[in-house]
Amino acid sequence: MAELEKELKEYLKGKVLKARSTLRELINITTEVKNRTLLRAAELIDRRREEIKEANRRDIETAKRMGLSKAVIDRLLLNDKRIDGMIKVLKDVANLEDPVGKIDKMWTRPDGLKIGKMRVPLGVILIIYESRPNVTVEAASLCIKTSNAIILRGGKEALNSNKILTEILKEAARETGFPQEAIQFIENPDRRLVWELLKMEGLIDVAIPRGGESLIRAVSENAKIPVIKHYKGVCTLFVDKYADLEKAYDIVFNAKVQRPSVCNAIENLLVHKDIAEEFLPKMAYFLAKAGVELRVDEGAMEILKSAKLPENAVVKAATEEDYYEEFLDLILAVKIVDNLGEAIAFIEKYGSKHSDGIISENYSNVKKFLETVDSAAVYANASTRFTDGNEFGLGAEMGISTDKIHVRGPMGLEDLTIPKYIILGEGHIRDNFGVPKEWKEEV
Amino acid sequence: MAELEKELKEYLKGKVLKARSTLRELINITTEVKNRTLLRAAELIDRRREEIKEANRRDIETAKRMGLSKAVIDRLLLNDKRIDGMIKVLKDVANLEDPVGKIDKMWTRPDGLKIGKMRVPLGVILIIYESRPNVTVEAASLCIKTSNAIILRGGKEALNSNKILTEILKEAARETGFPQEAIQFIENPDRRLVWELLKMEGLIDVAIPRGGESLIRAVSENAKIPVIKHYKGVCTLFVDKYADLEKAYDIVFNAKVQRPSVCNAIENLLVHKDIAEEFLPKMAYFLAKAGVELRVDEGAMEILKSAKLPENAVVKAATEEDYYEEFLDLILAVKIVDNLGEAIAFIEKYGSKHSDGIISENYSNVKKFLETVDSAAVYANASTRFTDGNEFGLGAEMGISTDKIHVRGPMGLEDLTIPKYIILGEGHIRDNFGVPKEWKEEV
Repeated sequence: MAELEKELKEYLKGKVLKARSTLRELINITTEVKNRTLLRAAELIDRRREEIKEANRRDIETAKRMGLSKAVIDRLLLNDKRIDGMIKVLKDVANLEDPVGKIDKMWTRPDGLKIGKMRVPLGVILIIYESRPNVTVEAASLCIKTSNAIILRGGKEALNSNKILTEILKEAARETGFPQEAIQFIENPDRRLVWELLKMEGLIDVAIPRGGESLIRAVSENAKIPVIKHYKGVCTLFVDKYADLEKAYDIVFNAKVQRPSVCNAIENLLVHKDIAEEFLPKMAYFLAKAGVELRVDEGAMEILKSAKLPENAVVKAATEEDYYEEFLDLILAVKIVDNLGEAIAFIEKYGSKHSDGIISENYSNVKKFLETVDSAAVYANASTRFTDGNEFGLGAEMGISTDKIHVRGPMGLEDLTIPKYIILGEGHIRDNFGVPKEWKEEV
Repeated sequence: MAELEKELKEYLKGKVLKARSTLRELINITTEVKNRTLLRAAELIDRRREEIKEANRRDIETAKRMGLSKAVIDRLLLNDKRIDGMIKVLKDVANLEDPVGKIDKMWTRPDGLKIGKMRVPLGVILIIYESRPNVTVEAASLCIKTSNAIILRGGKEALNSNKILTEILKEAARETGFPQEAIQFIENPDRRLVWELLKMEGLIDVAIPRGGESLIRAVSENAKIPVIKHYKGVCTLFVDKYADLEKAYDIVFNAKVQRPSVCNAIENLLVHKDIAEEFLPKMAYFLAKAGVELRVDEGAMEILKSAKLPENAVVKAATEEDYYEEFLDLILAVKIVDNLGEAIAFIEKYGSKHSDGIISENYSNVKKFLETVDSAAVYANASTRFTDGNEFGLGAEMGISTDKIHVRGPMGLEDLTIPKYIILGEGHIRDNFGVPKEWKEEV
């Protein structure tokens, strides 16, 4: 990849340094000011709705001209409903508790020294995202509330939409006394800027890429700064022998059909052998009727061969690869398992540590599943579709982490902070072996 | 760097896979078994004391033959006191609360869905360390207690010592029913193995390098897996205008002199201008008498010129670089500042976000300092030497993080775990728009 020109480097570093220079002001800003900024931004977005839609229209036109996919254009679109959604996020975040300065715990050592853990912002956060312009508002609102500075790097297809939204956020900041330079938008679409940003160790504290797996791999490969990653969601539901089948039909249907294109939809369904004959035909009927293609193992195929299914039903033999695949579509891989242990082993092997669940009324099986399955979100008797900052009650989310350090699952306000230690003494020292006290007469 | 031979790659991957294969057993192991393993290891170390010292003697001899520095040889040494120290660590860790499975919080959503955060192990942890063989026991004991698998990669100078300690730990594991393969020791001293381990994304969950800044930079540059880093400790104490000077003499002396070679010793001393004339001459006398070389700014030089100092006192003019330097020696950079703001700005510019403190009886200044200074450990009226897992009451420590994600400061048991979400429903779904219920009659 070609080196970045000097002017571009300067432009970029200038933005990051501006963001960084606000950190000391940010740490001392009150929750009141931050909330006022969020609520003012909500007002301004409401008032400047037409302008936003106009900017968005230009992005959509360009996207169409460039032949971008329908899915991208759909994600790009800002209609009144989505604008209302952004307004709601700003108000919700204003209503949530401010984690900054919170002392999670404090204890006293035998010598009277007090040790506490106080939550502080992460610092400068880089977010790299694609198409959806509402991410601009979601990410910025979470950073405003947690006194973090943010570098916004949206997709070039959403340039006009992101630009006006950032302008509005900065306007709200100016009006309410929040440092507007804490919100930086990288306008230049040159991809090399991203790689340059990812090298800024000490200037940017963490990078959060949101997008497809290839974007995230590339970010992770090139970063010299910490990255919080979300690779993919290969989610599985296991219908236990002891499942309440009425609940299971609804939960599996919801987890697959309600919105198949998202990471918390399931890709795999495991069914206990003892209830497969009863459960599978009906479940397959419902799924097939909703247009879901089934890719099933031999045992399931045997059962479904003689089952009543809708005319257009598609049932294929599953390959090994199918179980690893994030379909993001109306496709579901199905497997019959002998027991709970096999289900857990399957998830360990094929899953992506995102969201996995058990449907069972058996206490011990549920307890074992919840404790043993090593995923960011582990469910009992609920749809995996709940893995979402808003659904969990975190307000918005900065992303969903499939990493295993710092945060797992939806990244909310608290996860944008980290405890530092504060230590309160009264002259505490470890051991001076009597000196310098005994030298006091000499001077 | 030359590619690793196929056999070496296989050897390495074999070890990591063995460690990884224990994770499912580890997650279900009881605290009781883990404590028994730790206490049994303590017993075995006590019983096999002579063997350990003999193995260590061979390392020391080789180190001397290779002409390694006195400092390295001192760190390498295992005498009875240090062996007692390892035994104490094992017992202390056994006595600490097990964080695994702990539900930090649980809340109920408006629809009755219950969301909780349950602490789980990180998985497979790679620790890369130098010379000190007690790290083997400290790191392994923390991992045993937190149900993590550990890959130990010690320095080749400590090979025999590390080997026998690992053997003892594994023996304790075997005897008590803890999976011994969860403790893996990489014996082969080839440096390329480290780089290979750092590429094992998905197999190793986090790497923790302990050692000099160059080792840590190299690890961080080469890693494809998350790394928790400790760069350096450029720590500062600020003696405020409102300091109790009697406390200040002791604290500054302790923070510089008690053990200058460690990361939580101070390298910089800031003194408020209004008390400099009274405080500095006496402080300088004490420090100089203990052999500390002072590198001071113009104002301090002016004051010290006419001060009574011990005969062998060394007072030099400070350069800009001195304030950035981690001396790890009896050297202290000194600067007079006009006010609290200047002190905070100094720490922001020159410090390494490790441990910094204020000495002051002024409530508002202390509050402001504690809230504003962005370091892993921020002190009021105590020596920075307390930044240590044991001193903080965390038992042992896996290292001290100067990173800003996952953990800041001493990394104890809790920091070797991470909360996952557990979600308890009773058939909860997001919205199925009435189906498949209405299709139930069809099948």
